[in-house]
Amino acid sequence: MSDASKICKVAVAGLGTVGVGTVRLLQEQADLLEARCGRKLVVTAVSARDRTRDRGCNLDGITWFDDAVEMARSADADIFVELIGGSDGPAKASCEAALASGKHVVTANKALVAHHGHEMALVAEEAGLGLAYEAAVAGGIPVIKSIREGLAGNKIRTLHGILNGTCNYILTTMRETGRSFDDVLAEAQELGYAEADPTFDVDGIDAAHKLAILASLAFGAKLDFEGVYVEGIRHITPLDIEYANELGYKFKLLGIAEDCGNGIFQRVHPVMVPTDAPIASVEGVFNAVVTEGDFVGTTVMEGRGAGGGPTASAVVSDIVDIACGRITPTFGMPAKKLVEKSTLPMDSHSGAYYVRLSVVDRPGVMADITAAMRDHEVSLESVIQRGRDPGAPVTVVLTMHETSEAAIRGALEEIEKLDAVKEPPRLIRIERFQD
Amino acid sequence: MSDASKICKVAVAGLGTVGVGTVRLLQEQADLLEARCGRKLVVTAVSARDRTRDRGCNLDGITWFDDAVEMARSADADIFVELIGGSDGPAKASCEAALASGKHVVTANKALVAHHGHEMALVAEEAGLGLAYEAAVAGGIPVIKSIREGLAGNKIRTLHGILNGTCNYILTTMRETGRSFDDVLAEAQELGYAEADPTFDVDGIDAAHKLAILASLAFGAKLDFEGVYVEGIRHITPLDIEYANELGYKFKLLGIAEDCGNGIFQRVHPVMVPTDAPIASVEGVFNAVVTEGDFVGTTVMEGRGAGGGPTASAVVSDIVDIACGRITPTFGMPAKKLVEKSTLPMDSHSGAYYVRLSVVDRPGVMADITAAMRDHEVSLESVIQRGRDPGAPVTVVLTMHETSEAAIRGALEEIEKLDAVKEPPRLIRIERFQD
Repeated sequence: MSDASKICKVAVAGLGTVGVGTVRLLQEQADLLEARCGRKLVVTAVSARDRTRDRGCNLDGITWFDDAVEMARSADADIFVELIGGSDGPAKASCEAALASGKHVVTANKALVAHHGHEMALVAEEAGLGLAYEAAVAGGIPVIKSIREGLAGNKIRTLHGILNGTCNYILTTMRETGRSFDDVLAEAQELGYAEADPTFDVDGIDAAHKLAILASLAFGAKLDFEGVYVEGIRHITPLDIEYANELGYKFKLLGIAEDCGNGIFQRVHPVMVPTDAPIASVEGVFNAVVTEGDFVGTTVMEGRGAGGGPTASAVVSDIVDIACGRITPTFGMPAKKLVEKSTLPMDSHSGAYYVRLSVVDRPGVMADITAAMRDHEVSLESVIQRGRDPGAPVTVVLTMHETSEAAIRGALEEIEKLDAVKEPPRLIRIERFQD
Repeated sequence: MSDASKICKVAVAGLGTVGVGTVRLLQEQADLLEARCGRKLVVTAVSARDRTRDRGCNLDGITWFDDAVEMARSADADIFVELIGGSDGPAKASCEAALASGKHVVTANKALVAHHGHEMALVAEEAGLGLAYEAAVAGGIPVIKSIREGLAGNKIRTLHGILNGTCNYILTTMRETGRSFDDVLAEAQELGYAEADPTFDVDGIDAAHKLAILASLAFGAKLDFEGVYVEGIRHITPLDIEYANELGYKFKLLGIAEDCGNGIFQRVHPVMVPTDAPIASVEGVFNAVVTEGDFVGTTVMEGRGAGGGPTASAVVSDIVDIACGRITPTFGMPAKKLVEKSTLPMDSHSGAYYVRLSVVDRPGVMADITAAMRDHEVSLESVIQRGRDPGAPVTVVLTMHETSEAAIRGALEEIEKLDAVKEPPRLIRIERFQD
């Protein structure tokens, strides 16, 4: 509780939904926040590109800057809040300027933290400043604080989560309606649940940014965004969703991180999870993070992953921490102590798999397929071939017991070469999360 | 990050499962904790009654005290950890002695905090000391930290949770096996999931302690344990569980707190929740807490509510906070600023209800019952009367739409007087948690 008598001055860069939500929260809950912090929190400066737009919040008495970097440098503020977005450009430049001029930094920017968080943490810690980013992962859920502080006594072995609300909304809607990816995406864009350019969301990049941050925090490892294996959800078809349902699974885009001792796995890809797994019930725009700590066991946190209110709630929790003098190393321990952990290649991943093939219905095809599986020591769990249509292509769905990704990929390479196989095989990972 | 160079010395009072778990965690994760705190955490003293027992942890070089109060007063320690239990006696005396001699206090003791937390917080805050109790509620789940800091920007309107693992285990097992309360309780005692004297757990007192703590924290209200309405699970029968199942509900012992502006509700009682409500899937010894904040919306946290490992994880998270200088007012804002909020009586509660009656099967009975309901303006939702047995008692189950507790109780008082009604009516609250 440092400087309890002094007003804590906040400068907010970026006045989109989250920026306006943050300004409104700081104003509307001023009394509550003063009671909790023991000092007033006051927005002294804001910056955004267009000064003329009505933003739906009261900016009277707040200094306006057209340029975020200029504000970071010269505004009368203790804390600089970056809500501009983007891994580089003005977001990065303004955070660097803020730290250089002795201001604490709070950001909601996962791309920035995933790419430059380590270097920025070194600078912040050298200067004794806070660099906080609760809002960058899982919106309003205090997952960063929980892992960094609440589970500080644990070695975390593995974590997984639904980290992108857009993908979860699309997958939930595809399952509920039987509609195609393109169709549901178009609707999500109309409803404002997906961006005009949906690449970062549907190709898994946004989830990968968040996963890299969680992995660094959980494992005490140096951030390694490049080490994240990423696969999006564009290729998921209503047919696969139908088969998943029949097999007792739901589709989720998961981020999964595992510390295997000899290296870490970081992967974002669509996964089939058992319908009764806790994470399967997290639907629509909700996010969830599940951690496994050696003393605490399984902990699940769930809530809204996006939106002005939830994200502002997370931003303000960081502001409150700093205003109360609760400044914690950015990744839970001093950045210079974070260990470089090598990334394990996906080929060495071992798990269960779903494979969908389109094959000509004629004698001997199944024998060729199963022989290829046997030659790669892949053990079949179940086969579904529904209907018969001699001489024409039919769908065959196979599920595998625990096998290595190298083995199943090897088998599929061989199977794809068979004359009777008419489309590239579709490979989807199954995660059962049993303890 | 205060005193980063200095060892942080910890004295642990009580060497039961949690005490031993805490000592072991501090020893086994010493390197990790040193990296996270920037200083060593060392157990310098312990106290317990029986010096001769082998506790399964290494106590070499640790000063032994027979008396916790003496240790609190004179041990060479920065932090005193109270794991003795009980709302008064040595637990309270030792915590008071620790604060009086300038030591921070960490406790897992919900009874102590629920009864004396406010007074102790005033003392601790006056002295600039920490008084932390993450382990007192929901075991390893960092729910105290999340509400106190992670959701600090929100007014919390309502929260509910499964706060007692013993009751949840008993209710889960009763539903899965159809067995009686007494039978399942006896088994739980054998398995170590229930105490020899199960009163605190099965009568809802333990959950009430925890709920009072959460309500104080969430609403900025002065602790009011006496204001908690408490009803346990002893009266839940396999028959009620069967009807609940038929109606699409599961039984849970919930703690529910609501801030209604003109006062607060704090209540612990068995509840029928829809089978598809998120809280319904929290089974066995797991705990969960659901909060509703005005900016963040719904947040759910779930994990193990008891056991040496999870509870030690929570205790150590408090130790780490204090060792890092992150000292927060005990109830999220200075204790002297907490507001006395009046408790609303259960009669003014409004909700849905389940009623089970045993009535003689003869003409006119249903007319008398429904007339009593009408006279109290209670609106029926559904009636189940299965089978007929003219002249003999049959079971009638009724569910009500939203009604006031005063009205339904008034109606039942009248119904109980009817000749045809053979047993006191069974009244159970239904919570739908729809937003």
